[in-house]
Amino acid sequence: MRSEEDEKLCKGFGKNLANVRNQLHWSQERLALESGLARSYISDVERGIRNVALVNIFRLADTLGVDVATLMAFRLSNDNAGNQNEPRSAD
Amino acid sequence: MRSEEDEKLCKGFGKNLANVRNQLHWSQERLALESGLARSYISDVERGIRNVALVNIFRLADTLGVDVATLMAFRLSNDNAGNQNEPRSAD
Repeated sequence: MRSEEDEKLCKGFGKNLANVRNQLHWSQERLALESGLARSYISDVERGIRNVALVNIFRLADTLGVDVATLMAFRLSNDNAGNQNEPRSAD
Repeated sequence: MRSEEDEKLCKGFGKNLANVRNQLHWSQERLALESGLARSYISDVERGIRNVALVNIFRLADTLGVDVATLMAFRLSNDNAGNQNEPRSAD
């Protein structure tokens, strides 16, 4: 159950990254070159098979010149996640 | 150079997580219990010695009932990072 949800997050992030990159008309090659990350890594992230960590999330955002919140906003804009958009109450 | 910057990101995230948690008057124990993450892991993240990955960033935000952007906003609000706030231009 948890891992299915995790997979959805990774896929959502990857799809959103690809959308942002494509909107800027950047190729995966360009993003790889300018970020210093491997092309195969970028490809894996966009396919949602990598649980990308904090420093690379910032590296990708900085390289693309977008706010990190833009890369993280996929539950609101790029995913059919339904109720996941609602924050859980604190209690 | 890169790793010093990375360390700053991990420390910034950890400090911000602690701030958000403290504002909600949650203990590390409560965050650990409700998120299903180990208390020692939460402690490591808050001390900036973990490069926390996507699914745990969302898990922490969801558990605390805050938007993930709130946890990622530390370069603007919780860190004296100066020019790091400015996005790099695309070229």
